[in-house]
Amino acid sequence: MSQLRQDLVTGHWVAVSAERARRPFASSASAPNKATPTPSCPFCEGHEAETPPELLAVRLAGGKPNTPGWQVRVVPNLFPAFSLGVHKAIVEERGIYRVLEGIGVHEVVVLSPSHREDLATLSPDHLRTLIQVFIQRYTADCADPSLEYLMIIGNSGAAAGASIEHPHSQLLGLPIVPPAVQREMAGVARYRGECGRCIYCEIIRYERASGERVVYENDHFLVYSPFAGRLPFETSIIPRWHASRFELMTTQQQQAFADALHQMAGRTANAAGDPAYNFYIHTAPCHAESSFDYHWHLEFLPRLTIQAGFEWGSGITINITAPEEAAKILRATSP
Amino acid sequence: MSQLRQDLVTGHWVAVSAERARRPFASSASAPNKATPTPSCPFCEGHEAETPPELLAVRLAGGKPNTPGWQVRVVPNLFPAFSLGVHKAIVEERGIYRVLEGIGVHEVVVLSPSHREDLATLSPDHLRTLIQVFIQRYTADCADPSLEYLMIIGNSGAAAGASIEHPHSQLLGLPIVPPAVQREMAGVARYRGECGRCIYCEIIRYERASGERVVYENDHFLVYSPFAGRLPFETSIIPRWHASRFELMTTQQQQAFADALHQMAGRTANAAGDPAYNFYIHTAPCHAESSFDYHWHLEFLPRLTIQAGFEWGSGITINITAPEEAAKILRATSP
Repeated sequence: MSQLRQDLVTGHWVAVSAERARRPFASSASAPNKATPTPSCPFCEGHEAETPPELLAVRLAGGKPNTPGWQVRVVPNLFPAFSLGVHKAIVEERGIYRVLEGIGVHEVVVLSPSHREDLATLSPDHLRTLIQVFIQRYTADCADPSLEYLMIIGNSGAAAGASIEHPHSQLLGLPIVPPAVQREMAGVARYRGECGRCIYCEIIRYERASGERVVYENDHFLVYSPFAGRLPFETSIIPRWHASRFELMTTQQQQAFADALHQMAGRTANAAGDPAYNFYIHTAPCHAESSFDYHWHLEFLPRLTIQAGFEWGSGITINITAPEEAAKILRATSP
Repeated sequence: MSQLRQDLVTGHWVAVSAERARRPFASSASAPNKATPTPSCPFCEGHEAETPPELLAVRLAGGKPNTPGWQVRVVPNLFPAFSLGVHKAIVEERGIYRVLEGIGVHEVVVLSPSHREDLATLSPDHLRTLIQVFIQRYTADCADPSLEYLMIIGNSGAAAGASIEHPHSQLLGLPIVPPAVQREMAGVARYRGECGRCIYCEIIRYERASGERVVYENDHFLVYSPFAGRLPFETSIIPRWHASRFELMTTQQQQAFADALHQMAGRTANAAGDPAYNFYIHTAPCHAESSFDYHWHLEFLPRLTIQAGFEWGSGITINITAPEEAAKILRATSP
């Protein structure tokens, strides 16, 4: 079981998780982005017995659980950063410090039976299936009252911290609302208090009018380079309508989100040389009653540069590509 | 000239700096940590003409500027993230956003004439000379009223974002107090308000009494693994007396700091396989009058793991090595 520890001075939370050290490729920091597939990849079709039993799988042509024939498959993480305990997490004093049991869930969503497919190459229809799987698992996990937040993330490539090459995403359930989401919620509340409107809706309006940082849009979603983007070719996908919870999308909106994902990932792969990347979905906390004000979105971070001492020490990120420049290139690239 | 941009929602600052994209090895993300030295390393002795003219150099046996015979040498960064403008930086509105001209300084401190020496191998006497150079440049740069903060950082190894292999540190001057320091100052002020004491002095007292996370100490400094350390083998060096400004050390304290640096870097190199690392000094802001409450320290971050989507999306770091375990190993290792 891991442990959440809070820094006494800064309030920063850290998950101390020795379990994670047992991951097979945990220190593949200098491995190339796309290595030769290992013959024993546990996420490839036909290797279903090498993972814990599946929690969910989509088999459009039918078939038994834990056998081939699936399109998207969800299994528990074998090296979980968090796992469910028997009781709700409690902040405890440990001498002068504060700790919290690392209660939570950690699931792996295998994006495709093929080792080679990726967000950039999967069809929009396949991506819509993936989104429906995200929603189904998110909704099931959220029912647990010990979880305050569920984060959907994706890591692709060793430079982005992926320990297994086969394309996959992860669901992480946490006993706290993560600080990054808390900061956004505080910003949302402050602006609403001052101006009476949603700050993300204002940004969407401003960016669509300016066009300078717009990468792509469809009827439901805007893909853009944030004005204060931290990394070269960073983009966000945001619903054009005010929506606090990604899991409440209609089928039509899911299809439009899949299209936006396809456009974003495909254009980035082509424009920036198929880089390693991370993404995550920021949505309202599981149980917050006043979460209507939040505006959900997906953030996509190509990992072309490395955070060095200045970034760690200052909390300021140096971005060597102006977001306007990145958007211009992405607009001119096909997905 | 770079530009500081603030995120409207989170308040996060980003330095957009296209200059930095021109660095020779800026994207060497997957290069090994210690490559063969390039014959044209601009920081090696004898290559003084390949850098801008030096700002300061220590030549114990005398000699002319910009010629061989130096022990530590400071030059302007050829690809500065920040450079001094003609006026004090002003926050400006850019549509709905906020920007600040990237006014500042960016200097390189070459640690040694040799391509192979490093914090872990330089003698404590050499390190004391280095510390004196840091103090001299820090004091000179701080006199500029347009700078609010000066950060001393070090990056070693490609996995830590170093673009040049030859051991060097950097001084970065900024028109704002960086958010990471602001958060620490807020934590210090909160604890002093509630308990009337310095929170760092409390931590030192607690850690010395417990001993669990202590790596090394001498008469003036404590080297320890912070309770909520973010990375495997992360350590801090902190003065055992209450001191807000690193530049006010006595000669004896400088010598003790050099000894602590030597112990910390040497033990880490031996215990963790000579990892890439970052370090930075957190000291009080240049001009803050009420900065007496702050407690300066150096933070040292071996880069054995990669920050992935969970870390970026949540603001929570996963540390796969418990700080107590790291401290135990470092205590048992010789420098």
